[in-house]
Amino acid sequence: MKIDVLAELAATLEQRKTAAADSSYVASLHAKGLNKILEKVGEESTETIIAAKDALTSQDKSELINETADLWFHTLVMLSHLDLGPDDVLNELARRFDLSGLEEKANRSK
Amino acid sequence: MKIDVLAELAATLEQRKTAAADSSYVASLHAKGLNKILEKVGEESTETIIAAKDALTSQDKSELINETADLWFHTLVMLSHLDLGPDDVLNELARRFDLSGLEEKANRSK
Amino acid sequence: MKIDVLAELAATLEQRKTAAADSSYVASLHAKGLNKILEKVGEESTETIIAAKDALTSQDKSELINETADLWFHTLVMLSHLDLGPDDVLNELARRFDLSGLEEKANRSK
Amino acid sequence: MKIDVLAELAATLEQRKTAAADSSYVASLHAKGLNKILEKVGEESTETIIAAKDALTSQDKSELINETADLWFHTLVMLSHLDLGPDDVLNELARRFDLSGLEEKANRSK
Repeated sequence: MKIDVLAELAATLEQRKTAAADSSYVASLHAKGLNKILEKVGEESTETIIAAKDALTSQDKSELINETADLWFHTLVMLSHLDLGPDDVLNELARRFDLSGLEEKANRSK
Repeated sequence: MKIDVLAELAATLEQRKTAAADSSYVASLHAKGLNKILEKVGEESTETIIAAKDALTSQDKSELINETADLWFHTLVMLSHLDLGPDDVLNELARRFDLSGLEEKANRSK
Repeated sequence: MKIDVLAELAATLEQRKTAAADSSYVASLHAKGLNKILEKVGEESTETIIAAKDALTSQDKSELINETADLWFHTLVMLSHLDLGPDDVLNELARRFDLSGLEEKANRSK
Repeated sequence: MKIDVLAELAATLEQRKTAAADSSYVASLHAKGLNKILEKVGEESTETIIAAKDALTSQDKSELINETADLWFHTLVMLSHLDLGPDDVLNELARRFDLSGLEEKANRSK
């Protein structure tokens, strides 16, 4: 059985959202407010782009994986800060790509 | 049964990666190359940040969901272009947050 | 006599700010509003970063000059949209680097 | 007599480029390399965008001026790192907006 990392991570982030500001990095981000969270989203986006350029020339992809993880992580904190979660985004992606059709088929074959 | 949207989407993206450049938006991005894909990542990151600012003042969150979906989507295309996938990023996030422990427990309870 | 490009450009931008939306690119940006202008700032920032990475590997710097010009240009449109101009930014830079001292000396030597 | 802030600042930046890495912020950026400088460009671009959104709602423009100064400053460091300067960008802007025509007229009227 494969765990649903985004769902587990979102649950962890929700817990830390209401924790004391000095108890975790996530709690401190929420205490600093939306601007600070968005600065991190922009920062990690830039670092992802730089790491992708370097991955193409160096063939070492570990930095790109790290920076993309940072970027997704901070978008999850942003969603949490605005009372949203990964499912809101995943449902939108599923709708666009008609993955609901796949879901229906999966349901039928159960 | 809940579908794994990122895994389904990644499979779809892999198919389109090798398709003719004029057959889909994803195929055209791959044909244009990494710079074009990274420009889209940066563009959608900016639009996500603007939409988050607007979500806080307007309380309408649909634009933020759309832009975050665009951002995640284009990072998936970027990963695919460099022969990576969402699992590389999710495994890194699981490792950081010790979700592997959760996975082990899940395995034991099967 | 060397022209002051930023001052000349700012004067041109002010004229176009009040022109009909279909009369120029700048007028159309103002008509679309601040979000559209900021999207362009973010987009050109990303393209500048990508061009700088490419300039380091290829030694061709023309693309970097073009993208930095695009970035500065769109920050000037942004300043104009919010009733600011390049002097507001240049005065702040002069203050930080104590260039006012240089200005005073220049005044004395006139 | 008005000083040319960008030219003065560029001259200052060139001096600090070759200074010991621990002697100034600019020297430390050059020592860390292009990626670090580009991360700062992306970071300041994001902060400029956030400050512009806040300037529209709060009418306080000082933060926007500060962040735009940071953005221009770090693009100047980037140009210096790649052996370019503000004149390369200003000449490109002058060319696009036909400000050379203005320069000719200015020369004739001297």
